[in-house]
Amino acid sequence: MWAASPAFRRRLFLLRSLSPSPCAALPGNAACSSPSPSTSIRVNAMSASGPVYEADAEAVVRRITPPLDRARHKGQAGKIAVIGGCREYTGAPYFAAISALKVGADLSHVFCTRDAATVIKSYSPELIVHPILEESYSVSDGERESVSSRILTEVAKWMERFDCIVVGPGLGRDSFLLDCVSNIMRHARQANIPTVVDGDGLFLITNNLSLVEGNLLAILTPNVYEYKRLVQKVLNCEVNEENASEQLTALCQKIGGITIMRKGKADIISDGKTVTQVSTFGSPRRCGGQGDILSGSVAVFASWARHFLLTNEYPTEKSVNPMMLGCIAGSLLLRKAASHAFEKNKRSTVTTDIIEFLGKSLEDICPAGH
Amino acid sequence: MWAASPAFRRRLFLLRSLSPSPCAALPGNAACSSPSPSTSIRVNAMSASGPVYEADAEAVVRRITPPLDRARHKGQAGKIAVIGGCREYTGAPYFAAISALKVGADLSHVFCTRDAATVIKSYSPELIVHPILEESYSVSDGERESVSSRILTEVAKWMERFDCIVVGPGLGRDSFLLDCVSNIMRHARQANIPTVVDGDGLFLITNNLSLVEGNLLAILTPNVYEYKRLVQKVLNCEVNEENASEQLTALCQKIGGITIMRKGKADIISDGKTVTQVSTFGSPRRCGGQGDILSGSVAVFASWARHFLLTNEYPTEKSVNPMMLGCIAGSLLLRKAASHAFEKNKRSTVTTDIIEFLGKSLEDICPAGH
Repeated sequence: MWAASPAFRRRLFLLRSLSPSPCAALPGNAACSSPSPSTSIRVNAMSASGPVYEADAEAVVRRITPPLDRARHKGQAGKIAVIGGCREYTGAPYFAAISALKVGADLSHVFCTRDAATVIKSYSPELIVHPILEESYSVSDGERESVSSRILTEVAKWMERFDCIVVGPGLGRDSFLLDCVSNIMRHARQANIPTVVDGDGLFLITNNLSLVEGNLLAILTPNVYEYKRLVQKVLNCEVNEENASEQLTALCQKIGGITIMRKGKADIISDGKTVTQVSTFGSPRRCGGQGDILSGSVAVFASWARHFLLTNEYPTEKSVNPMMLGCIAGSLLLRKAASHAFEKNKRSTVTTDIIEFLGKSLEDICPAGH
Repeated sequence: MWAASPAFRRRLFLLRSLSPSPCAALPGNAACSSPSPSTSIRVNAMSASGPVYEADAEAVVRRITPPLDRARHKGQAGKIAVIGGCREYTGAPYFAAISALKVGADLSHVFCTRDAATVIKSYSPELIVHPILEESYSVSDGERESVSSRILTEVAKWMERFDCIVVGPGLGRDSFLLDCVSNIMRHARQANIPTVVDGDGLFLITNNLSLVEGNLLAILTPNVYEYKRLVQKVLNCEVNEENASEQLTALCQKIGGITIMRKGKADIISDGKTVTQVSTFGSPRRCGGQGDILSGSVAVFASWARHFLLTNEYPTEKSVNPMMLGCIAGSLLLRKAASHAFEKNKRSTVTTDIIEFLGKSLEDICPAGH
């Protein structure tokens, strides 16, 4: 509905962010027209084997973020679910889920184990936390099949309400739990629900590629170690920094055209057809949890981008991959928020400090108006 | 006692808010004497089938809010109870209960399941949380009758202390729990305790209308989806936007003169005799939980309005429905608080941010003095 606004549709400068022409030729691309030294270094570093063009990430954020319409109802700005949280980990799913709300989703759910649920609920009354996953220690061998089936039934009754799910933050590596999550991923795929896979979710799919193979609505967000394992497993070789973009593109193609955001100094993003990067400087702090903010943010932006493209009338935009746009926007927002948080908190910056700046960072790029 | 103040009684401009004459003719009605464009649009939008007049909601808030008298004791400004909170939901009952306190009630209780109680207690030490409800999974078939009876006994011993109860925030849909809550609602009715029904409480009463039928102290606060189900069930037809006020009035009459606030862009309020609306602009954010703030706030204002009218000597005011006044005041306060919160937090506004502004919003309308 919001995409039908003529004023909004006139701002058709989104596509240059994914265009294969050099970014310097693109009008209004601030990142390229007045590049910072660090940006230049990044672009140059990738250019040995052909340049990776910087996405006009601010334009993407502005383009896909829905206007705040007074006539809209609860849920229309996005309903996100995080599958993660076990006896050991509770922070990661909280960070991902609360980030989704702070970016602008209306509802944010978490599906986790009972042990994790009480803690995650207590972090914030804003989240809807479902204590339904189980780990091996709490299920006897004889019960496994019925418990697994019950878990899938309970998640499935919610699934179609979600605009995107995030699989992996704080999931842990318990074999029974991962089997149940595999079923949930298959169900999400059948229901055409975009799926962001991070953290232990990447451990799961690296060992079972069929879970994401050929799923054009899947996004993987590996860090340096997770990416290494993925490359070894899928391409049967080591990470090649000289041909980073080619290797990433090949990896995406090999897994059937899924979208991968390789996190690093610059986040390089590909869907096997096109490749771009976001290298806006964020923060030198590497406190744990930033990846969770990213996965929650990407989930919201990917669902917004999908909605935008599904309801947009311009055929040129139909060919753009909303999962790519979600990654570009999420990457930029995290970097902006991390920069603000570091400016304020310096070495003591923690993940909660960064989440606090998601709203201001989005407002700076894309003012909500009054 | 406070209502007997002569200075307070002289300010008899309350009733115009419910008057059937056009609001433009009402002296001192700021919302109408200098209408904003959006207000005009709203009123016009309703005029296809006869206008719905904007309530002078600020006057209502000022009229029914009790003065802060140094001689008063704990509890005299209101004792509210929320019936809700189960294994799945803990945020909603917390939002409703804490909002009641933030509006100005002296004591706020929550009756929930054991699983939910620990979490709700951890959100805030301000609430009194009773872990006495049970869901089916924790009660064997043979125990049901005795557990149900025990739950009613435990709630009943508190009931007469309450000035209003809120049924539904985070209640869930477990059949055994809903049966127990039905008993609690019947008991509250016998004890003449005003009852606000929201969320899953609306699911309950839509399937069992006798729980509220003819209860002049019942308020329903349905959102767009809940209203649709109610209209289908009671009037056996679809929602008619062209004759929105007539349909709402008919719905209230059909359920025996209960008060219904149909939430939306404008909140339309009727008791089957009169209809009014509050359309002050709040916020375009539709994050989950705002309905819970509203139910908690309406509970406090409805109890204040009831107390005011019961102790007022002017016969003209005896005919005013305090449940209507509670809805008008609650609607305005949420809208003002949401507006402040959005101004500060923009797209990242969450329910907790809105609750933070309840106090300032009330103070702006009705200063507490010293």
